[in-house]
Amino acid sequence: MIGVHPASLIEGAGVVLAGLSGIIEARRKRMDLVGVYAVAFITAFGGGTLRDLLLDRRPFYWQGNPTYSLVIFALSVVYLYGPSRIRRAASHPRLELPEQVLDALSLGLFSVVSTFFALDHGSTLFIASIFGVIGSTFGGVIRDIVCNEVPLMFVPGGLYASAAFLGSWALIAGIEAGLTPTTAALIGWVVGTGVRLASIRYNLGLPQIRHTEEIPAAPRKL
Amino acid sequence: MIGVHPASLIEGAGVVLAGLSGIIEARRKRMDLVGVYAVAFITAFGGGTLRDLLLDRRPFYWQGNPTYSLVIFALSVVYLYGPSRIRRAASHPRLELPEQVLDALSLGLFSVVSTFFALDHGSTLFIASIFGVIGSTFGGVIRDIVCNEVPLMFVPGGLYASAAFLGSWALIAGIEAGLTPTTAALIGWVVGTGVRLASIRYNLGLPQIRHTEEIPAAPRKL
Amino acid sequence: MIGVHPASLIEGAGVVLAGLSGIIEARRKRMDLVGVYAVAFITAFGGGTLRDLLLDRRPFYWQGNPTYSLVIFALSVVYLYGPSRIRRAASHPRLELPEQVLDALSLGLFSVVSTFFALDHGSTLFIASIFGVIGSTFGGVIRDIVCNEVPLMFVPGGLYASAAFLGSWALIAGIEAGLTPTTAALIGWVVGTGVRLASIRYNLGLPQIRHTEEIPAAPRKL
Repeated sequence: MIGVHPASLIEGAGVVLAGLSGIIEARRKRMDLVGVYAVAFITAFGGGTLRDLLLDRRPFYWQGNPTYSLVIFALSVVYLYGPSRIRRAASHPRLELPEQVLDALSLGLFSVVSTFFALDHGSTLFIASIFGVIGSTFGGVIRDIVCNEVPLMFVPGGLYASAAFLGSWALIAGIEAGLTPTTAALIGWVVGTGVRLASIRYNLGLPQIRHTEEIPAAPRKL
Repeated sequence: MIGVHPASLIEGAGVVLAGLSGIIEARRKRMDLVGVYAVAFITAFGGGTLRDLLLDRRPFYWQGNPTYSLVIFALSVVYLYGPSRIRRAASHPRLELPEQVLDALSLGLFSVVSTFFALDHGSTLFIASIFGVIGSTFGGVIRDIVCNEVPLMFVPGGLYASAAFLGSWALIAGIEAGLTPTTAALIGWVVGTGVRLASIRYNLGLPQIRHTEEIPAAPRKL
Repeated sequence: MIGVHPASLIEGAGVVLAGLSGIIEARRKRMDLVGVYAVAFITAFGGGTLRDLLLDRRPFYWQGNPTYSLVIFALSVVYLYGPSRIRRAASHPRLELPEQVLDALSLGLFSVVSTFFALDHGSTLFIASIFGVIGSTFGGVIRDIVCNEVPLMFVPGGLYASAAFLGSWALIAGIEAGLTPTTAALIGWVVGTGVRLASIRYNLGLPQIRHTEEIPAAPRKL
């Protein structure tokens, strides 16, 4: 029905972009090579691996394509021990949060490819869009959990899971409208990544809960 | 052997109750709609999904019953954007920790249903009771990890995993004693939920480690 | 090709050692019996379970050998409620961080056995060494996440994942050099555990990122 090969190509691009965002993030935390590689690996493959576990798709992307593991390892080495202007480039003020741009690009790509795989697997449209969110956000969620932070996805402000959700639905709408998978995927990617980037630049978010309404202190401690 | 259909009905009730507890909890953290829905989804389906992954049962509950995903989405929308008296009801002093009551009800239900599924899968009794604990507590564990807290399950004081464990064994004892699955399930639910609620109200817990005994400071930092 | 039975024996030893390290660690946090048992269970079986999920190996170690679950339960009970000199022994100054020694022993064992299983499964050598790292470190990673700490694996200083990685490659080199699996496994274990222990005693680590180089503050908050 829907070809798997273009989706795998898209996934490859997402893996490299997400891996780079993980490398930049981990280095900010002053991790050593192993820590940086582990965080990059988790960020790059975590979402897709959870998605494939849930869809029962084997082998996993990184098992079937060992080259990607080595590429991310090489990128980690070059970033940590290469000339310092590489690292300066990643924090150049003109580039403005390069790892957020990388993260947004991979968010859109993973959302599209994960929705594809779920549809191929026979999921309903709503479940397919949830897979779009899981596949595109979970790598970042584990990365943040491992770094002992509240994952971005759960911090109010900014559109993160919502961007993935909209990208997923843009793809679905395109397919339902009779576009070719490639065109629909392109639209989904542009929507997912575009919404994420726009929410960063223009400080967009879902309606906040009114702070005037009284919220009782958490009574969870027994 | 043991029918799966009543167990699925029980699971449906547990899913809605756990989802509601997640919604109330996430809103306390002032999350927006996507954050609330994601936390509710994880709390409702996390334990059962891990259990099914480990037992190799497919499709997952939320894949086979997409209605539940939509019900939890609708509940999230209503709770966040509906009339404020709904939110006040959830923090009414008379109701006394409504999300802990919801959590206790779903704990008992998930413990029973997870033990059933493990027995159906051919697990030994002890392993089946461990599945009762995994299926009933893990949703809450991920919820708390995602919110960057030490999970309730690992905080001393109160009976949490122990309540799930006892509920699971009450079910097993009932089946071994020749009761019908439905009766045994009811007993297991009452025991699991009852022990949890009693431990909150009467401040029960397992024997604490004597604090007079010297505990050396953690030497884990290298 | 490679026999599974000796690997299972090695895994049994790793499970008990890792479980003990989890028990000591959890008791330091003043957890009660259920908390201690849950942390011990996760530490002992977490890495192997993730590895088996990813390799699609069933049943899991703790499902096929329920005895181990009971052994770890018994050890938890004895450690918590047994005579206090058992607990003092675990913090005797002469023994110097006994749970780190236990952890290092199980790290080497799990690294070897996980590499074996991945090779048996047909993985490439590099992917097999990544499985060596996943299988040996992930139990500790979940343990630390559950205790709301940054996992040791991601804290700079000390060789942790690197030790598992080297142990895994020592095993692979041994097999490629034509040694018997048992001899190669022994070498891999000695290398993995030895590197970990040496890094603790002599304070070894991978080259640190130069702190003189400017690292911008994390811009992740929106």
